[in-house]
Amino acid sequence: MASSSASEQDGIDRRYMAAALRLSRKHLGLTSTNPAVGTLIVRDDGNGPVIVGRGVTAIGGRPHAEAEALAEAGELARGATAYVTLEPCAHHGRTPPCANALVTAGITRVVGAASDPDPRVSGKGYAILRGAGIEVKEGVLAREAADQLAGYMNRSMRKRPEVILKLALSADGMIGRRGEGQIGITGEIARRQVHVMRAECDAILIGIGTAIADDPELTVRLPGLRTRSPARIVLDRLARLPATSKLARSAGDVPMLVAACSEGHAAKRAELERAGVKFLATETYDGRVALPELLEDLGNQGMSRIIVEGGADTARAFLDEGLVDRIALFYGPEAIGADGIAAPIGRDHIPAGFELVREARFGEDSFAEWIREI
Amino acid sequence: MASSSASEQDGIDRRYMAAALRLSRKHLGLTSTNPAVGTLIVRDDGNGPVIVGRGVTAIGGRPHAEAEALAEAGELARGATAYVTLEPCAHHGRTPPCANALVTAGITRVVGAASDPDPRVSGKGYAILRGAGIEVKEGVLAREAADQLAGYMNRSMRKRPEVILKLALSADGMIGRRGEGQIGITGEIARRQVHVMRAECDAILIGIGTAIADDPELTVRLPGLRTRSPARIVLDRLARLPATSKLARSAGDVPMLVAACSEGHAAKRAELERAGVKFLATETYDGRVALPELLEDLGNQGMSRIIVEGGADTARAFLDEGLVDRIALFYGPEAIGADGIAAPIGRDHIPAGFELVREARFGEDSFAEWIREI
Repeated sequence: MASSSASEQDGIDRRYMAAALRLSRKHLGLTSTNPAVGTLIVRDDGNGPVIVGRGVTAIGGRPHAEAEALAEAGELARGATAYVTLEPCAHHGRTPPCANALVTAGITRVVGAASDPDPRVSGKGYAILRGAGIEVKEGVLAREAADQLAGYMNRSMRKRPEVILKLALSADGMIGRRGEGQIGITGEIARRQVHVMRAECDAILIGIGTAIADDPELTVRLPGLRTRSPARIVLDRLARLPATSKLARSAGDVPMLVAACSEGHAAKRAELERAGVKFLATETYDGRVALPELLEDLGNQGMSRIIVEGGADTARAFLDEGLVDRIALFYGPEAIGADGIAAPIGRDHIPAGFELVREARFGEDSFAEWIREI
Repeated sequence: MASSSASEQDGIDRRYMAAALRLSRKHLGLTSTNPAVGTLIVRDDGNGPVIVGRGVTAIGGRPHAEAEALAEAGELARGATAYVTLEPCAHHGRTPPCANALVTAGITRVVGAASDPDPRVSGKGYAILRGAGIEVKEGVLAREAADQLAGYMNRSMRKRPEVILKLALSADGMIGRRGEGQIGITGEIARRQVHVMRAECDAILIGIGTAIADDPELTVRLPGLRTRSPARIVLDRLARLPATSKLARSAGDVPMLVAACSEGHAAKRAELERAGVKFLATETYDGRVALPELLEDLGNQGMSRIIVEGGADTARAFLDEGLVDRIALFYGPEAIGADGIAAPIGRDHIPAGFELVREARFGEDSFAEWIREI
């Protein structure tokens, strides 16, 4: 290799994997039931490495990233290195699996980040490559890939979506003021960042209390960005969501799901259904919606990432049942004081098993994110 | 036992399992990603057996059939026999698994039809029962249960929905007349039966040729029956579906999916998307949509049963790739003759591996149905 850098070990430049991960993130939330994967094809003819192919899982989930990158590289793939954020698929459909496509294209080295937990792929994708004489290096930037692929990993291994708990807190750890509805805790830049996070998810979930008190619409508004609004889900055992709410009135444009009991409230249900609201059948337990069963059903419907946006009771329910996989906290600059509603969590009391993966500032607000290992 | 009958062996009355299977069929197509299961609880205090609890998986998929039947039986479940069409679930969520619920309720014998292929349940449901001292008899009317649960079994084991090929043929095996659009081959009673079949599916799939030639709506119209219209899917690689078609115009009311290439046709796609049409990203192969990949994605989205309704090319494509699991043929009384378009299949040339499971008459038309083992 002509180039060398601090990030280079074993002849592998980790910056290419970092770039493949950034590339894959572009389509996070847009690839339906397929994981958002990135691939870079890097060729070195003796004058230093050159990127000859870039691929990200297409919007909607197909074609896969490897096919896109190989198509761009064409003949230049022969003798090149492929950086893949997830083990290439190994199961045959009508089109060749990506592992075989890499072999056919003449790739001579594959650098992988995450392994695929799907039993039809797990280890087999790398084995196909090795069997064809390709040099394979696994587990490069594995931690970063696990962070990015957590939705897919959760659905494969836990049979449910990744649950992301997002809260906006005041400087003294409150999420609102008693007797008031939504209050502005964070600024405009942080709120825009929340829209980016929503766009990367399959659904936004809130409790009926928040739905009634705040009357939110929970859509994604990011002018100029290609996004789609995720489904909205309200935990609403007794079907109390008003048909006049913004959530119900926008049900014709963006999917709106109510997790309610299977029985009763027929007239109210019919009214909401006429507005385009869909009902999710649930089990109940101690007068609450049974969350593990609900998440299992949502995973079965193809959802990989769900963001829980409140209120305090809903956040606490997910935390108490150990169903939170990622915690994202925004802190505003002001304190609320004695009138405040305390958040069920804070940066100084994150549950055991979580690890800080990201910190940032958005205008006057600070942000931190923790994930736990699957 | 006080009663005896030809259907009774080993002290088990198979008529109760047959009744549980009929009961489960009521909700076929209405239980989302959960299988439609039936449960009967039968008690014999010495004066002959009495049904004390009936359950079918609730619309939307929860609660499960066992919970419904146990709730109806109450204290009468103690010492009774439960007939379950599918192995009771064994994995814990917030609510107890059905296997444990049967134990707690005091059931002393469980008669099961199908085993559950889900690795979290498979064999474990029956093992929990036996571990608690319950007498378990498996595999009663297993063939009938496999027929009814084929959608769930396909999604669990083949990672794709069951594909049902439905064709209406003339007496001489034609599916239409050259140069004409849809022609009435079968009568009103058979057409109504097709609507029942559609209501039991998650999606109806046709090719773009049929969509353009016939301009069908493909919705379910069954006055008085509680049903929902399944999604409509058109194989339409080049996004040719007219925005003025009945399929596109009804997209706001009933899900309408177009399986198209990921790229190109941006203006046409945008026009259809404004009408509420959703696009499925596909792989293509030799200028056709890659069907195994499409089916895998539909299974991942939670679909268990898809009915393919034409035309001849689409039917042939599914048959050629070995992707048909059930064949349903309606035969009208008239012959079409030399002008006819020959069907790709007929009752006298059913592929190897299929078994006749049903024959019926609907008015002047005859009907036959074949399935193959998973």
